[in-house]
Amino acid sequence: MGSGVSRTGDFMKDKMTRAHIIEAADQLFYRHGYEHTSFSDIADVVKISRGNFYYHFRTKDDILDAVIETRLANTRTMLERWEIEGEKPADRIRSFIHILIANRADVKRYGCPVGTLCSELAKLNHPSQPEANKLFTLFRIWLRRQFARLGREADADALAMHLLALSQGIATLASAFHDERFIKQEVKQMCDWLAEIAQEKRPRELVHLSNPD
Amino acid sequence: MGSGVSRTGDFMKDKMTRAHIIEAADQLFYRHGYEHTSFSDIADVVKISRGNFYYHFRTKDDILDAVIETRLANTRTMLERWEIEGEKPADRIRSFIHILIANRADVKRYGCPVGTLCSELAKLNHPSQPEANKLFTLFRIWLRRQFARLGREADADALAMHLLALSQGIATLASAFHDERFIKQEVKQMCDWLAEIAQEKRPRELVHLSNPD
Repeated sequence: MGSGVSRTGDFMKDKMTRAHIIEAADQLFYRHGYEHTSFSDIADVVKISRGNFYYHFRTKDDILDAVIETRLANTRTMLERWEIEGEKPADRIRSFIHILIANRADVKRYGCPVGTLCSELAKLNHPSQPEANKLFTLFRIWLRRQFARLGREADADALAMHLLALSQGIATLASAFHDERFIKQEVKQMCDWLAEIAQEKRPRELVHLSNPD
Repeated sequence: MGSGVSRTGDFMKDKMTRAHIIEAADQLFYRHGYEHTSFSDIADVVKISRGNFYYHFRTKDDILDAVIETRLANTRTMLERWEIEGEKPADRIRSFIHILIANRADVKRYGCPVGTLCSELAKLNHPSQPEANKLFTLFRIWLRRQFARLGREADADALAMHLLALSQGIATLASAFHDERFIKQEVKQMCDWLAEIAQEKRPRELVHLSNPD
């Protein structure tokens, strides 16, 4: 019995250490890039013995796979939460648009965690590239479903991709120009654009093109 | 006299070797990333002796600065050409939009050369980041001028940034999904959007939101 408890304790501790390594690696990959982050950089942050580290992960590629897996799980959870919290499809799409605002401090410094990881893995021709791209696919399918529910079945995928593309571009430019005001201005325009699609207000003018000031 | 000719010859040869190194580095940085490309990778492509290589560049950072300087010069030349070739401001903005089509094979594989370099340097907190961002600024100022000439002085900068952001996002997603059709679809939408702003057709509907099919 005692040995059983101890084994359960070890199992929990192992699981927490593993989660700790993944979290540290995720942050380092996001802030400094996958290529630039070394195995030792991650070990230094986690502050565990090299032996314990190797017990969990043999290579940086193994850690990358675990980071992507964790991000996919977290994204699924977030999308499910938005689905439940948002009364209407437009409310849910607004949850997506607003992550740019919620994460603006990081976006301004490091860009989008999904876009910059996928771009880097594409250049490295890394075998985990298709797995990382699934992060985009999760958002794409989820947004497509929301636009379809708004009555835009015919171009739901095009609208989803357009919104994804715009968010990506906003993150890239906000990071280059370190400009939060730009994020807010574009988010406002996206919300106006969405309101037109959701017919929340009558289409009186090309809101998408209007001066945000 | 003979020695003068020889010195001129050496000078030309030096200049060509330098340009060759910069061109090779530019391609490698674009295709595989700055961090991933080593000094030796560049030397291997250029196929010159290590001594000759070091005569031109001491560090990879020196090469990066030369790559950015060359890109800035090439961008200025391209923008001047568009300015001359385009009869109206809208024609010139269309030249910008169409680089996504002209470079779609590379964009699909490696994303945008400007966006991906700036994103990587931001993560590396690299001292050449402000210089690389000037590439974006060149496009921003040039586009802003064209939108102002279209009579949109009040929001010329917002329109320029919006178009830049959208192009960046299209490049990021086209690279993740390896999708040329998506590039063409978005380019068509951007051209429709521009035509509305330039009042090349009467504003009968929200073209930006319309189904591209």
